[in-house]
Amino acid sequence: MSAAKGYAAQAAHAPLTPFNFERREVGPHDVRIEILFCGVCHSDVHQVRDEWGGSIFPMVPGHEIVGRVTEVGAHVQGFKAGDLAGVGCMVDSCQHCAECNDGLEQYCDNGFVGTYNAKGKDGQPTYGGYSNSIVVTEKFVLHVSEKLDLARVAPLLCAGITTWSPLRQWNAKQGDRVAVMGLGGLGHMAVKFAAAMGCEVTVLSTSPSKEEDAKALGAHKFVVTKDPEAMKGISNYFDLIINTVSAPMDLTPYVASLRLDGTMVLLGVPPEAPQLHAFNLIAKRRRIAGSLIGGIQETQEMLDFCAEHNVMSDVEIIRMDYINEAYERMMKSDVKYRFVLDLATI
Amino acid sequence: MSAAKGYAAQAAHAPLTPFNFERREVGPHDVRIEILFCGVCHSDVHQVRDEWGGSIFPMVPGHEIVGRVTEVGAHVQGFKAGDLAGVGCMVDSCQHCAECNDGLEQYCDNGFVGTYNAKGKDGQPTYGGYSNSIVVTEKFVLHVSEKLDLARVAPLLCAGITTWSPLRQWNAKQGDRVAVMGLGGLGHMAVKFAAAMGCEVTVLSTSPSKEEDAKALGAHKFVVTKDPEAMKGISNYFDLIINTVSAPMDLTPYVASLRLDGTMVLLGVPPEAPQLHAFNLIAKRRRIAGSLIGGIQETQEMLDFCAEHNVMSDVEIIRMDYINEAYERMMKSDVKYRFVLDLATI
Repeated sequence: MSAAKGYAAQAAHAPLTPFNFERREVGPHDVRIEILFCGVCHSDVHQVRDEWGGSIFPMVPGHEIVGRVTEVGAHVQGFKAGDLAGVGCMVDSCQHCAECNDGLEQYCDNGFVGTYNAKGKDGQPTYGGYSNSIVVTEKFVLHVSEKLDLARVAPLLCAGITTWSPLRQWNAKQGDRVAVMGLGGLGHMAVKFAAAMGCEVTVLSTSPSKEEDAKALGAHKFVVTKDPEAMKGISNYFDLIINTVSAPMDLTPYVASLRLDGTMVLLGVPPEAPQLHAFNLIAKRRRIAGSLIGGIQETQEMLDFCAEHNVMSDVEIIRMDYINEAYERMMKSDVKYRFVLDLATI
Repeated sequence: MSAAKGYAAQAAHAPLTPFNFERREVGPHDVRIEILFCGVCHSDVHQVRDEWGGSIFPMVPGHEIVGRVTEVGAHVQGFKAGDLAGVGCMVDSCQHCAECNDGLEQYCDNGFVGTYNAKGKDGQPTYGGYSNSIVVTEKFVLHVSEKLDLARVAPLLCAGITTWSPLRQWNAKQGDRVAVMGLGGLGHMAVKFAAAMGCEVTVLSTSPSKEEDAKALGAHKFVVTKDPEAMKGISNYFDLIINTVSAPMDLTPYVASLRLDGTMVLLGVPPEAPQLHAFNLIAKRRRIAGSLIGGIQETQEMLDFCAEHNVMSDVEIIRMDYINEAYERMMKSDVKYRFVLDLATI
């Protein structure tokens, strides 16, 4: 065991405060990482507040982790001390079901092990990246290029892969018309990725004030969804809509903006389920799909793509003791577009 | 013009009664068909009752038409007098949009011309198959094999293609697990097609009494959806669900029975839109899609497949003057599985 310092919530709704705990010894397949930066994800707040139920306390959140390898186990082949490394939402899975064998650990039949608020195969609670170190089995550790700005890489491990995966799954390519709903941590990455893939990117927003930001991120078009004329102009238009919104919403006008065989991918879970108007799908053979983060191999591909195309998140770096205020600001969407903790400040 | 005899509703909710009208002259690209049989579709009732709005009266319903060619225009190459022929839900489309060029006339950007309750390119109302003859442009006329029982072919032109198209679109193949919801005109064809394609077919039903019928149609399994234990057994199970139900329903347990990347295709439009629980899709990258009848080329492929595999509808042949009673029985699902009008009785 080795001592670790983190920030934890001791109970649902409690503020995050300093927390000393232990990380496991580095086993033969393990990698120990000194955490340098950790992104702050909406799901951190949901879980700290136990809004999904079953939260485990004390909870050290954080699953957008980048750092430097300090120690590796005897059988580790892909990493050595001094390497940069990333860890996302998963730190383990059964590794023998059909999904794991296909590199789709996020859909593991036996349930993946979350980076925090979960129990590992050893039965011990997992603690996340709001801490100065982590020990993770090699298969769930990603390589990070030295070319990239590490703080801006951190959010790729969740917000990045969550939007990358459906773009790849639905084969977004040069010239495709891709729309992004919601311009937050996820949405801003969807815009960057789709633009880097050569798609024509449109941001759909209720707020005209976001147009300048959307275009700065790489969007080619911006449609204010409250403007009926503008909405008419995108009827039967998009090949793919990446819907990152988790607020209550009426999907109907958005689905109607899909062209024949177009797909809307849902990434967020609104608290009230929207209605599904079947005719809207039937009329143009449209689809609505879901997507959950991404597999380990796919995450590596995304990170490699980011290094090649110089794609990173837009972030606001914060000190560890700012986390509770950051949560308040994040819930008001007052961040462009991701808070990232500088773990040197812990 | 040539005299035709049909049965028409003179107004919304009026009973169908004998109606004399005229068919257009056979133009250079037209085929005149003596109608022998016409299937009775749920949508006939919806339109006669003006439940979708905008119904045109008098209305001669019917879009599951089979008959024999009696005359062809000078430029018709694919048909000659004496040939068997079929006509489905469409009698024309713009024939120049991207969808029409792709053989997807049912999604014509300019709207296809319905076989009845529509206006043709000449501005005249179209009259359907509850009549003794019809004149249709060659491109929308299908070839029907002499090997098949004509009365049992008629429902293939709507119920058949409507279920065939999503099975093909979603690549149902040998060994795939396909579920069918709703065992009516559409559902019974979905079972037959999926079984003929080599799929493992399960009928999902609220009513245990349908098991014997489902298996007689070719289903391998039967699950009573009110049985929680049985539902547990199909969690994450199906590759494809063909949902023919147009009654109000909770989609959740059915969507949960889809495996990773599985798809539910909606063919019916419930009067109250069901809720869409995003997490149910996200958790296993599932999809919900819509599908509308099928294109002309695809309809021909289906008819050819039916001739090769001896697939036909199960029907109850009725006299023309039984139509109003048949409507009442159909609305109570009191038919196995399609009424077909014998037009010799008109």
